[in-house]
Amino acid sequence: MTFEDARALDAADSLAPTRARFTLPDGPVYLDGNSLGALPAVAPARLSDAVERQWGAQLIGSWNSEGWIDAPARVAGKIAPLLGAAADQLLVADSTSVNLFKLAVAGLRLSGRPELLTETGNFPTDLHIAEGAVAAVPGARLRAVGPGKIQAAIGPETAVLLLTHVHYRTGAKRDMAALTARAHAAGALVLWDLSHSAGAVPLALDAWDVDLAVGCGYKFLNGGPGAPAFLYAARRHHERLETPLPGWFGHTEPFAFDDAYRPAPGVARFACGTPPILSLLALEAGVETFADVDLPALWAKSRALWDLFAAELARRCPELEIITPADPDARGSQLSVRHPEAWPLCQALIAAGVVGDFRAPDVLRFGITPLYTRHADIWTAVDRLADILATERWRDPRFQAHAKVT
Amino acid sequence: MTFEDARALDAADSLAPTRARFTLPDGPVYLDGNSLGALPAVAPARLSDAVERQWGAQLIGSWNSEGWIDAPARVAGKIAPLLGAAADQLLVADSTSVNLFKLAVAGLRLSGRPELLTETGNFPTDLHIAEGAVAAVPGARLRAVGPGKIQAAIGPETAVLLLTHVHYRTGAKRDMAALTARAHAAGALVLWDLSHSAGAVPLALDAWDVDLAVGCGYKFLNGGPGAPAFLYAARRHHERLETPLPGWFGHTEPFAFDDAYRPAPGVARFACGTPPILSLLALEAGVETFADVDLPALWAKSRALWDLFAAELARRCPELEIITPADPDARGSQLSVRHPEAWPLCQALIAAGVVGDFRAPDVLRFGITPLYTRHADIWTAVDRLADILATERWRDPRFQAHAKVT
Repeated sequence: MTFEDARALDAADSLAPTRARFTLPDGPVYLDGNSLGALPAVAPARLSDAVERQWGAQLIGSWNSEGWIDAPARVAGKIAPLLGAAADQLLVADSTSVNLFKLAVAGLRLSGRPELLTETGNFPTDLHIAEGAVAAVPGARLRAVGPGKIQAAIGPETAVLLLTHVHYRTGAKRDMAALTARAHAAGALVLWDLSHSAGAVPLALDAWDVDLAVGCGYKFLNGGPGAPAFLYAARRHHERLETPLPGWFGHTEPFAFDDAYRPAPGVARFACGTPPILSLLALEAGVETFADVDLPALWAKSRALWDLFAAELARRCPELEIITPADPDARGSQLSVRHPEAWPLCQALIAAGVVGDFRAPDVLRFGITPLYTRHADIWTAVDRLADILATERWRDPRFQAHAKVT
Repeated sequence: MTFEDARALDAADSLAPTRARFTLPDGPVYLDGNSLGALPAVAPARLSDAVERQWGAQLIGSWNSEGWIDAPARVAGKIAPLLGAAADQLLVADSTSVNLFKLAVAGLRLSGRPELLTETGNFPTDLHIAEGAVAAVPGARLRAVGPGKIQAAIGPETAVLLLTHVHYRTGAKRDMAALTARAHAAGALVLWDLSHSAGAVPLALDAWDVDLAVGCGYKFLNGGPGAPAFLYAARRHHERLETPLPGWFGHTEPFAFDDAYRPAPGVARFACGTPPILSLLALEAGVETFADVDLPALWAKSRALWDLFAAELARRCPELEIITPADPDARGSQLSVRHPEAWPLCQALIAAGVVGDFRAPDVLRFGITPLYTRHADIWTAVDRLADILATERWRDPRFQAHAKVT
């Protein structure tokens, strides 16, 4: 495979035009859209309009005239097709962490069983929030078992099985349908974290009979830094689910200003405080980058890019251990490699114009975002990586300095 | 008082120049800055830069290079002087509702006593979240008493006294120093909601020995629609306060990706998920509208505007009952009147170019925001109101139609 071969694949790619939906910097190859999605081309004008006309000129009136009040449900409706979910089961609100708390507590209280079951090595906020959730439900307890022991650990005490679909570090993907069925057979509910799945891999929450789910707006959904998150609750549970965070935006009639909390119908009760409208409108622009995209074709392109990436790495950087499963049914849209000097390697690579990221202690992680990632980008990434490894340029002291955010 | 007299007062007003820190629409008189603050003049350029350069061009690198990671503490540091609080006790995070939950639960757990005491008729989210908080603490219970019965209700069972400083509907202001002292004498903690106080009235949280507080970013702080909120926790409690929402941004080392939650030192542990950066940077622009402003002079101007408003209403609209206390020590920076037809009156007034708002069931509410409200605005508001009352124009059917957001 040469650079020209990769360019030829891009020229033949039916999804190549969607790259124009983004404004990307000219120089670098960006393989970190699984951490912060790229800027949608329409976002600057959308945000300017939101700031100058909607806020500045129309002021408070925009809550009605611009539909700010409906934005959480409206944006959720645009996310729904990416999840294989009917829209009335989705809401955009708060952060992934806060939504995890809401649904973990609601699930524990609905179940009445004592155990919140999850896995060690899960994304930290999932584990931390799980601790917070069991502390908020008398009699509840947290059980975290090794990734290989989940199936066996599901039992009659399990209230909620909390798992992440695609692992943030390794990119390994759980079989959501099978694990959901296994949990249901044991009488447990499932709560899936879709942070590295939404917009990245095929999802069919309704068909897979999922109970509860949350996910992130700023990764593959391209919603901007710290974009609001989403949550999903299956319709069959709506009227029996209670939110532990009953804020006024989840009241059935917030502007009646009642003392008594009366939950909004359905998933809307999981809204809490006033939503951050500017960040929410940026998320809307992000989600719209998927408009009219053939999702199976998008996943096929992710697989093709991954295969190219893995083959070129094997050929040119054999010292890197690929830790993401090769089977596409067992992975997300990322490729992670292990190297004892992953941190300086990552910094040297960024300096060479290829942006991936480091995940402690020894992982170099690359996101594949087929709406804008090209075959030539993958080729270039491997080419630069091979050069840095061959020259040992990562040993340069300037690549050792640590950063607050990795 | 004539319009020219009011204009003369504006000409002599030493704070008149701060109006140029905002971009306001040419036509309407805006007296709803207590619901949504006006647009800071620098906000469009700040947001464009955040969207196009920081997100679009620099992408993930902006977490470090643009200090996104430090923004919650940095913006909190700019709010601190408005609250009379040392900055290390403040954090910007989430919404007022979510922050209320964090601190109410943390306070109940710290106290060990059973009762969360608040008042009926408090802002709804405070009452709803209080219900949620006691449900998350075994043995805790909520007690809501009438506003006049608070003092007597504080007792040996009181864990946390949760009160709003300035009432959203009436504008009545509590004596924070006295009630805090009363609660402390009974061994209770206080949790103050400053949503209608921050940026509006004199505050001295440290001097008044306040324990815990929360407040809103989108009202007098001019942070934009749904701006992130803030929370305050007195330094003396820091190491014993536990957050019920232990998200990864409140971990002492989020990018170590530990399974075990280890709280960040001090108030930083009350961060939860990834903050909405675009909304946060808009809030920063909002808070900066107070830079170098003499706060006692700002409050003096609020009082002068209020006195003018009340005097003109008494003279020209005697049928309106002013329900906000006349004593400046007992009120915030708003003026509320009662009228059985407050809703159509409010709509007719908006149609006449004066924006206040309606609060169910019968209140017409006007915010006084002396950074940009002029004496002439107050005069015009009363003039239009007197005209609408005299002509009974509010009876027009088009002013009856209800809106989702009021």
